[in-house]
Amino acid sequence: MDGEIFDEQDPVKLYVPKRERREKFTIDARAPIGVFDSGIGGLTVVRELMRQIPDERMVYFGDTARLPYGAKSRDTIIRFSRQIVRFLKTKGVKAIVIACNTASSHALKTLAEENEIPVIGVIYAGALSAVRATKNGRIGVIGTRGTVNSEIYPKVIQSISPGIRVFQKACPMFVPLVEEGLLHDSVTDEMAARYLQELKEKYVDTLVLGCTHYPLLRSTIGRVMGEEVTLVNPAYETATELRDILAREKLLNPGDGNMEGKYRFYVSDLAENFRDFANSILPTEHLEAKKIEIEEY
Amino acid sequence: MDGEIFDEQDPVKLYVPKRERREKFTIDARAPIGVFDSGIGGLTVVRELMRQIPDERMVYFGDTARLPYGAKSRDTIIRFSRQIVRFLKTKGVKAIVIACNTASSHALKTLAEENEIPVIGVIYAGALSAVRATKNGRIGVIGTRGTVNSEIYPKVIQSISPGIRVFQKACPMFVPLVEEGLLHDSVTDEMAARYLQELKEKYVDTLVLGCTHYPLLRSTIGRVMGEEVTLVNPAYETATELRDILAREKLLNPGDGNMEGKYRFYVSDLAENFRDFANSILPTEHLEAKKIEIEEY
Repeated sequence: MDGEIFDEQDPVKLYVPKRERREKFTIDARAPIGVFDSGIGGLTVVRELMRQIPDERMVYFGDTARLPYGAKSRDTIIRFSRQIVRFLKTKGVKAIVIACNTASSHALKTLAEENEIPVIGVIYAGALSAVRATKNGRIGVIGTRGTVNSEIYPKVIQSISPGIRVFQKACPMFVPLVEEGLLHDSVTDEMAARYLQELKEKYVDTLVLGCTHYPLLRSTIGRVMGEEVTLVNPAYETATELRDILAREKLLNPGDGNMEGKYRFYVSDLAENFRDFANSILPTEHLEAKKIEIEEY
Repeated sequence: MDGEIFDEQDPVKLYVPKRERREKFTIDARAPIGVFDSGIGGLTVVRELMRQIPDERMVYFGDTARLPYGAKSRDTIIRFSRQIVRFLKTKGVKAIVIACNTASSHALKTLAEENEIPVIGVIYAGALSAVRATKNGRIGVIGTRGTVNSEIYPKVIQSISPGIRVFQKACPMFVPLVEEGLLHDSVTDEMAARYLQELKEKYVDTLVLGCTHYPLLRSTIGRVMGEEVTLVNPAYETATELRDILAREKLLNPGDGNMEGKYRFYVSDLAENFRDFANSILPTEHLEAKKIEIEEY
């Protein structure tokens, strides 16, 4: 592959800029990985990165002042994402993970083209995993309105395997239900039953959890869909892909440097539930988040 | 009153700056009223303003790129509100209505002190109306987490009538349910029953709908609370108060000027549901909303 998988003709692949572009810069393998999301959902990606590449340092940014991204327009999401990338680059990151399906749908191509470090989203990894998992060629995708309307999952899945049929359903209430902590609740059960009925009627055998909040509803979604349906969590696949890219590009952290402040968390608003949520899903102790003024970047 | 009800010692009252401050400026009675909200909820206030002061022109701003405000911090809400006021002033507004309980809770005092035109929120009018309505001296207040945590309604109500007991309950799922159009739905019924049970057990006889989205759930909330409980919609009282202030300050629009573009709507993101929602609740036809970059103000 050799840094050549960036392809103008095929904008759906993982974005690693061409080597000649990147060699103008010196990327430090000991630098942290930048990860961002609209708020807390991206922490499910951080959790996977911590598991799969435990020697890596990370700088996380959650745009809690402007969340949720799900129903906002493409232009707005690109503008917000550019500000965030400018902020993350002030922290000297060696790669950027867009840990948000909506932002990956709208902004990945732009950000990858504009930056000299690898920028990856969660879509391609999730799509590839779903293609590998399906046996009957019928894949369901659930996500925010933004992700579903962008048609990115059907496009990517069909670019990988043209014969596959993709059925999408936006589940806009899932994010607020997760943010309110109603992970195991009769209201969540009812909304899940309603949203997923359509996909069950399409006999999908694989379902992509196309929003980083949704893995937290995995048990509810799994129960409604039935155990014969494979649930794909793009966070897992994204971590694997990033590990492979870093290895290939010789950018894996050797783990021998200063690990003070190994994981740093920044938010645009000190919403009380960010810290609680992060502490509940991440294996770190006493995580602290620092507020920054993202609009100044 | 004569413009003297602005009172540093009593920051809960309506904010009309002192006359000597304002007389440095010439306020045109034919200028529009500026109204803002985090998104669509404030349109319930616009609807009341259209009914009660039909000769007034209005400029509305909905911060759809950064909604919802309900769970965001005081600092962030003040920063956002200042940007919005700067934008509205470029449209030459003669008065500003903060048509959002969360923003009124956090930003009214600051905005009123910083501006030479009248700035009013929705809290005082709603509180006064509730005080007038209660017979047993037990008032319930429902709102976002931000509004409830600010304790603004209890403070204002008790400053008007110290003996009254106020019971609050945050209802964070109500905003997404309204935004998703689930106004008459079993899930909304279930959430309402859960949120309101506590207040029923306190025997409140008056309930303040302390979020501009909530009047759209009036029938559900009324059914759960029972017909003996008076529901107070601060939008109605706010429109009445604004009419009185404009009359007293000789700022009512005589209605004889150019009424082209009488109502203008601006948003920070062209979310598809803004126009649909506005067209469904306002009596204007074919309302159009224009997108602006609020972060530049």
